[in-house]
Amino acid sequence: MNPATFLRALGPEPWSVCYPEPSIRPDDSRYGDNPNRVQRHTQFQVILKPDQGNAQELYLGSLEALGIDTRAHDLRFVEDNWESPVLGAWGLGWEVWLDGMEATQFTYFQQCGSLKVAPVAVEITYGLERILMSLQGVDHFKDIRYNDAMTYGEMLLQNEYEMSMFNLKEADVPAHQTRFELADKEANRMLEARLPLPAFDQLLKASHTFNILDARGAVGVTERAKLFASMRKLARESAQLWVERREELGYPLGEWEQAAVGDPVVSKAPPPTEAADFFVEIGTEELPAADVTTGAKQLLNAVKACLETAGLKHDGVTYGATPRRMVVRVANLAASQESKEERNRGPPLSRAFEEDGTTPTKAALGFCKKNGVDPADLEKDGEYIWANVKTTGKAAVDVLKEALPGMVSSINFPKTMRWNSESTFSRPLRWLLAMHGEHHVPFTALNVPSGSTTRLLRNSATPVVEVKDSAHHASALAADTIEIDFEARREMIWSTAGELAAGVGGVVPASSGEPGGLIDEVVNLIESPTPILGNFDAAFLSLPKEVLVMVMRKHQRYFPVENAETGDLLPHFVTVANGAVDPDAVRHGNECVLKARYDDAQFFYEADTSKSLADFKPKLEGITFQTELGTMLEKTERVEKLAPTLARALGFSDADAKVAAEAAALARADLATQLVQEFTSLAGVMGKHYATREGLPAPLCDAIFEAALPRSSGDLLPTSNAGVAVAVADRLDTLVGLFAVVGAPKATADPFGLRRAAYGAVQALVSSNVRCDLRAALKEAAALQPVTCGDDVVTECLEYVTRRLEQFLVDDGCGAEVVRAALAERGGDPALAATTARALETFVGGDELKAAIAVLARPTRLVRGKELPEDLEVKRESFAEEEETALWDAYEKAAAKIGDKSTASVEDLLSAAALLVEPSEAFFDKVFVMAEEPELRRNRLALVNAVASLPNGVVDLVEMPGF
Amino acid sequence: MNPATFLRALGPEPWSVCYPEPSIRPDDSRYGDNPNRVQRHTQFQVILKPDQGNAQELYLGSLEALGIDTRAHDLRFVEDNWESPVLGAWGLGWEVWLDGMEATQFTYFQQCGSLKVAPVAVEITYGLERILMSLQGVDHFKDIRYNDAMTYGEMLLQNEYEMSMFNLKEADVPAHQTRFELADKEANRMLEARLPLPAFDQLLKASHTFNILDARGAVGVTERAKLFASMRKLARESAQLWVERREELGYPLGEWEQAAVGDPVVSKAPPPTEAADFFVEIGTEELPAADVTTGAKQLLNAVKACLETAGLKHDGVTYGATPRRMVVRVANLAASQESKEERNRGPPLSRAFEEDGTTPTKAALGFCKKNGVDPADLEKDGEYIWANVKTTGKAAVDVLKEALPGMVSSINFPKTMRWNSESTFSRPLRWLLAMHGEHHVPFTALNVPSGSTTRLLRNSATPVVEVKDSAHHASALAADTIEIDFEARREMIWSTAGELAAGVGGVVPASSGEPGGLIDEVVNLIESPTPILGNFDAAFLSLPKEVLVMVMRKHQRYFPVENAETGDLLPHFVTVANGAVDPDAVRHGNECVLKARYDDAQFFYEADTSKSLADFKPKLEGITFQTELGTMLEKTERVEKLAPTLARALGFSDADAKVAAEAAALARADLATQLVQEFTSLAGVMGKHYATREGLPAPLCDAIFEAALPRSSGDLLPTSNAGVAVAVADRLDTLVGLFAVVGAPKATADPFGLRRAAYGAVQALVSSNVRCDLRAALKEAAALQPVTCGDDVVTECLEYVTRRLEQFLVDDGCGAEVVRAALAERGGDPALAATTARALETFVGGDELKAAIAVLARPTRLVRGKELPEDLEVKRESFAEEEETALWDAYEKAAAKIGDKSTASVEDLLSAAALLVEPSEAFFDKVFVMAEEPELRRNRLALVNAVASLPNGVVDLVEMPGF
Repeated sequence: MNPATFLRALGPEPWSVCYPEPSIRPDDSRYGDNPNRVQRHTQFQVILKPDQGNAQELYLGSLEALGIDTRAHDLRFVEDNWESPVLGAWGLGWEVWLDGMEATQFTYFQQCGSLKVAPVAVEITYGLERILMSLQGVDHFKDIRYNDAMTYGEMLLQNEYEMSMFNLKEADVPAHQTRFELADKEANRMLEARLPLPAFDQLLKASHTFNILDARGAVGVTERAKLFASMRKLARESAQLWVERREELGYPLGEWEQAAVGDPVVSKAPPPTEAADFFVEIGTEELPAADVTTGAKQLLNAVKACLETAGLKHDGVTYGATPRRMVVRVANLAASQESKEERNRGPPLSRAFEEDGTTPTKAALGFCKKNGVDPADLEKDGEYIWANVKTTGKAAVDVLKEALPGMVSSINFPKTMRWNSESTFSRPLRWLLAMHGEHHVPFTALNVPSGSTTRLLRNSATPVVEVKDSAHHASALAADTIEIDFEARREMIWSTAGELAAGVGGVVPASSGEPGGLIDEVVNLIESPTPILGNFDAAFLSLPKEVLVMVMRKHQRYFPVENAETGDLLPHFVTVANGAVDPDAVRHGNECVLKARYDDAQFFYEADTSKSLADFKPKLEGITFQTELGTMLEKTERVEKLAPTLARALGFSDADAKVAAEAAALARADLATQLVQEFTSLAGVMGKHYATREGLPAPLCDAIFEAALPRSSGDLLPTSNAGVAVAVADRLDTLVGLFAVVGAPKATADPFGLRRAAYGAVQALVSSNVRCDLRAALKEAAALQPVTCGDDVVTECLEYVTRRLEQFLVDDGCGAEVVRAALAERGGDPALAATTARALETFVGGDELKAAIAVLARPTRLVRGKELPEDLEVKRESFAEEEETALWDAYEKAAAKIGDKSTASVEDLLSAAALLVEPSEAFFDKVFVMAEEPELRRNRLALVNAVASLPNGVVDLVEMPGF
Repeated sequence: MNPATFLRALGPEPWSVCYPEPSIRPDDSRYGDNPNRVQRHTQFQVILKPDQGNAQELYLGSLEALGIDTRAHDLRFVEDNWESPVLGAWGLGWEVWLDGMEATQFTYFQQCGSLKVAPVAVEITYGLERILMSLQGVDHFKDIRYNDAMTYGEMLLQNEYEMSMFNLKEADVPAHQTRFELADKEANRMLEARLPLPAFDQLLKASHTFNILDARGAVGVTERAKLFASMRKLARESAQLWVERREELGYPLGEWEQAAVGDPVVSKAPPPTEAADFFVEIGTEELPAADVTTGAKQLLNAVKACLETAGLKHDGVTYGATPRRMVVRVANLAASQESKEERNRGPPLSRAFEEDGTTPTKAALGFCKKNGVDPADLEKDGEYIWANVKTTGKAAVDVLKEALPGMVSSINFPKTMRWNSESTFSRPLRWLLAMHGEHHVPFTALNVPSGSTTRLLRNSATPVVEVKDSAHHASALAADTIEIDFEARREMIWSTAGELAAGVGGVVPASSGEPGGLIDEVVNLIESPTPILGNFDAAFLSLPKEVLVMVMRKHQRYFPVENAETGDLLPHFVTVANGAVDPDAVRHGNECVLKARYDDAQFFYEADTSKSLADFKPKLEGITFQTELGTMLEKTERVEKLAPTLARALGFSDADAKVAAEAAALARADLATQLVQEFTSLAGVMGKHYATREGLPAPLCDAIFEAALPRSSGDLLPTSNAGVAVAVADRLDTLVGLFAVVGAPKATADPFGLRRAAYGAVQALVSSNVRCDLRAALKEAAALQPVTCGDDVVTECLEYVTRRLEQFLVDDGCGAEVVRAALAERGGDPALAATTARALETFVGGDELKAAIAVLARPTRLVRGKELPEDLEVKRESFAEEEETALWDAYEKAAAKIGDKSTASVEDLLSAAALLVEPSEAFFDKVFVMAEEPELRRNRLALVNAVASLPNGVVDLVEMPGF
């Protein structure tokens, strides 16, 4: 947030700077108890603008300079995309892990103050205390030796304690709210005065004040959104004004110009004349784990398609990738395309020659030119002229050097970044290497020229090697223990991790090794897997297993180790280092990190369990839900009322309704616990844990947990009746309230998460297959709001939920028309709509459905657009023809078959429709509906209308194709 | 204000620390225009606690390490006693001048947060930018090369400009007032929570907010006092709490113990056996100029008194001193006291021996013991026993080594400090040297043991030398160009400065060389005078001479150079460096400093003269005078009304009254000018200058200036009628207003300067000898106040002013009884009271006054204590004796001689009293006043009372001795 970073990163002026800076984070206050979490630490901040292409190498060199042996320690660049919503700033990059400890944040700034950063600035932020702890081998920040005379603790421990007291307990909330407003107002005044630096200075004050309010637990979700919006506006306008002012000053520090791109490699060896192995390697800075696989697959497919299109023969294409490289190999790629002959037909003889019969016309000359033949070589048959065309096959190298740039640049990633130009990629592309046989293929992609070298592990003895051919490339990687094959890496990790776990009498839980498990990520975090077993103090096993495992998996990417029989956790973990390291050093480092994290968790857990879960409920008063909708406590009290009402409406028992009410009262209480405030993903989990721990009944504990479900897409869903009632009630309350005060979310902005709330409610109802009158339920919720919440709001809200239901059912595999057909009639009851859509989907393409559509489409089209009176009644006595009576009889049978429309199944509808096929056909063959005699016409229209209305309340077949 | 300085300086824990720190001073905002005044600069801050005795040497070593050649540059330790009223902190020390530029603040902390600092902490604060400018030879901060790539200006100029805009023009005043209140309140809450660091943190916010308000010109004199009081309270309580908390923590960094004092020198040479020269040298760190002379004189007198008392013979005592040493030399001091014989009488023979006549009694044995004689050696005369006692004279060295500690420690200074113990001195005492002949006299004073060496100039080739004897000491100093003789130094400076001035065709104004002039200070700022001529840009001569000279004298201690005939300033100055330096380097450095100061002045002057003086009057609205008494503008408007009223009451013409009103309107306007806000001592001077510059009439201009007089004791006083009227009116307004809202000042605290206001009003009236009915004038002033201001306030105020008048007249040379006698009758009119007192004083001790006292005392004593009716009338017809009639006749003549009591002189009174001498004597000889017959008694008492009342309205002789 220092202007030397935030503002100077903007604009075209070069700027390279480094400085240490105290970083104050009130939220990290721990009274000095936590080994490495402190409210004030020291960052060493580096900005390199523009990127010179070697920031990672400079950084690793700086660690060496600090005395860190980069050969002994496990240094990893782990995806971490920095974003500051307050500053309207983001960039892509990494946390740098030093033996599992986040030592540095490394970011390529893409945007600051909502402005594009161009040229891109590299930001490297060292956590000095953490690095010092590693260097000095101490386990607690207070033991860092500041100099020969003094420790950190002696210098700063009292300050940590006292400022923690201030930040967490003592700071006056209303006073800080006033301070925020004052700073915000002053900043806006400064912007009007065109003074970006004072404006930004005030923004910093506002931001710090916000952080204190936040640490005091005084900012609710929606209040946060509002304050963030104020700050983001200030950041944007300060940045904008700064850039304008620099431009007015004529950019005193000069303007950046992009460096010229060098030439691609000039190969010493000529292209092969015989088939030879080909490979291409794209070398990058560390890719996000997910991008490793998807990127490499795209490259594979691009190479395959290219060879296919070009008709280049080969003995097979393989691929592999690591965080730093994507490789595609082609075995025995032909030296060139095969040559071929073609006989192409030209214009008719009559138009190919002038009247003299020999001089070629313009048309003939054009044909010759197009086919590259001499007019003298034209052949003639009876009617046409012909050209015999011989095509010499193009060299594979020539094909590839033209195709490779496109193959590289067309790889898509979910998030891309710029580095030294407007080119984008998942992470900076640093080298390109393609060889056919011994020939280096020259090309340039994304401003990077191809070369003749590959890069090995960064701490290798020879980190860069000249490559002779594909086999040499493979052997060089192998010699450096780099494994590019996904499966091989996965197997190495899994089997070694299992052996290490077995060594301490345990197993790595199978779920970690399954597709979608942790291994999917770990396998793409390293090039050269080196699993290492670490241990932690068994005393931590008293913490909930969910907490311990979550910290290992989510924060550290460690495999947990369990007792194979009981499933109990053992005090061990397996981390996977990259390449050759000193295992003891790496183990020790990782153990320290885990200990610190567990200390943190224990700190919170002990604080939380000193009270009952119910004790946390009143604290929800300190969390604003939304200004007009009140605090989280008020919201909780609304849901407490709504949940049992809803439970009964859903047809649940009174006992269920009672549990729902009790669960609603406690469901959000864990938001006020410290552990959940720290590890937000444990919301619900901890509520259940704390409830269970204090001996509350199991159904209540389950419902407390289920109230939070689903927490994300693909998450668990509530299954108990009480759980469903609370989960849905909570979301309906959120929806109607926020629709009333802020309206529907926009496609691009959904700050209050309404989309997720609606989707979650729908999922819960559908998965539990519970019938629900959504409109009635929303009306109940609306009546409880502290703001006016009329029918228009309920209707708008219902429509919004129905659109989410539509999306859900489509995602679930139903066709769009099927879903629309079901929703048109049954959208107000998600479970019923889902059953209907799924049933209808099974009939799609079948004769039954076709027949039903056929039989119902004609009457529907006939009455469509006609203004029929509402009380249109069929009068049997008015029928003139027997076909009329027959159809009416059939209709009455069909209607009886369907029975109650609110429960009728699609199958019922179709078998009912089947009854109409014949009478319907006969009717339309024989009877003229629009008879001149009025009563006749009216009665016939009434009959047709009755038939057309048959599916009403079940599906609207108009939505189906063929209707 | 960093807690690493402020708080850590307290308590017994050792603490040595250094750090760079940005120092933000909103008041120093100059938009980046000024060469070395910026609102943000960088300090390098050092704390050494406890003092190790060599901080000055360490500091000079650090400058060498920075690349400053301490042999070439003029480095001086110039008295500057740091004080922070906000922090309740103070210490004694210096500004360190590098070629006239304040490069460092060097302080021995004595108190922080109103607590004693023990052990004393040495604080050294380097002004990094200033030192860099000197090192890099650049004239403007923006040209400092920050590194190879960037200048300071490129880094920080935009920030200077924008933050200057904020600090001086844009910051919102009410918002900052609110911020101050919030921080103040929060700090007090934190103190209650026993959290000193958060409390201090909030104090820092309050202080910064105050500084912004101050820079915005939004803090009046009295408002400032209030805010300072809040902050001082917070500082005191934070400090107190910090110390308590550290004690509770058991002083984690250990407790300081005073180092043992070493042994004094053991001389190799024995004490002299013949008369030999003696000298004593007290070596100190740089003493304040005034202390050099007074300290040395005290040492001289102490040595003289000691020798006199001890009867040690010598050929004369001389002395000298410089900032670093006081020396007293004694020529040919006797080796010892002279021996002597005495014959002492003992008890009578009758009581000296037992009955046997030979055995000595106890009394005789006691006498022997006392006189140190054997009983056998007793002599007897007829009546008594006698002892013949021989006393051997004590060695001079023995006398001196006993006396010297007391001589050193009893030297008094107006301000003293501690350094490494509880001992105090003007500045730290660093060496002691006393020699008699070749013998080093051993002694210890103020925890410093005497040694055998002296110290020469710090940049001398041999800064410490072993001394052989007094002559060697003198020659060693002389060889190093150190001159300890005051007159010799003065002459060297004056004659060389004169020569340098003559060289550019000018003179140094004689006033600088007179006693009380600048030379008195300069002569005691150096040990080895090296006058150097410097120049400044003649363009600056367009600034007012007062400004130019004030800056040279007051800020730089330079001698100005004038045209001898016109008195116009020439663009030169003379500075006096210490010892051998590189004159060009020193000249250049001093020229840069003066240029920067003049740039500053010019910046303000130009800003000010872009408007008329009247334009500044409305800005007084931004300066609070006192919360309840309104702004300076409101005060000005009151004085505008009061001044002409007062002028007429003082008997001045309508024209004078008109000028007074006009002057009152403009008199305070210069307080809002930038030059006066920067150089407050120019208040009034600049008002007159700006008024004159824009062509206002001379009497008005004079009165504007005179309104500010007197600015300090010994200052000029107003002389024009309008000037007197405005000056007095302004002060009376201040007095009644503040008496009404805050009451009389206390003896120890007078935050609003009421003492000076009252004294100034009195001086103005007395010196101009204008009659004034103070009570009436105060009532007029009271009627204009915005608060209730009744007769009680006026009375209290009048009494207070009368007490100041008393002090003034006593200071003026009148006896205390005389002053009381005059004030008792005429205290309500200062000029009249002064005339009366001065006249009475001339009669003190003379026969006329004695006679008058005699003649008036008897009747006064007679009526004293009797309750006489008010309408007591003398009835001639009731007289019984002729002596009664005679006295009454004499009285009537006397009363006629005195005439109007409100103008009668003391002389009139005395000659009137003389008429009563004989009749009075006759009356009291003959007449019994307390006759039995009631009417007789009543009439006689009436007569006596009339006589006793004769001096009423002139003086109250009861106050005089002998009455």
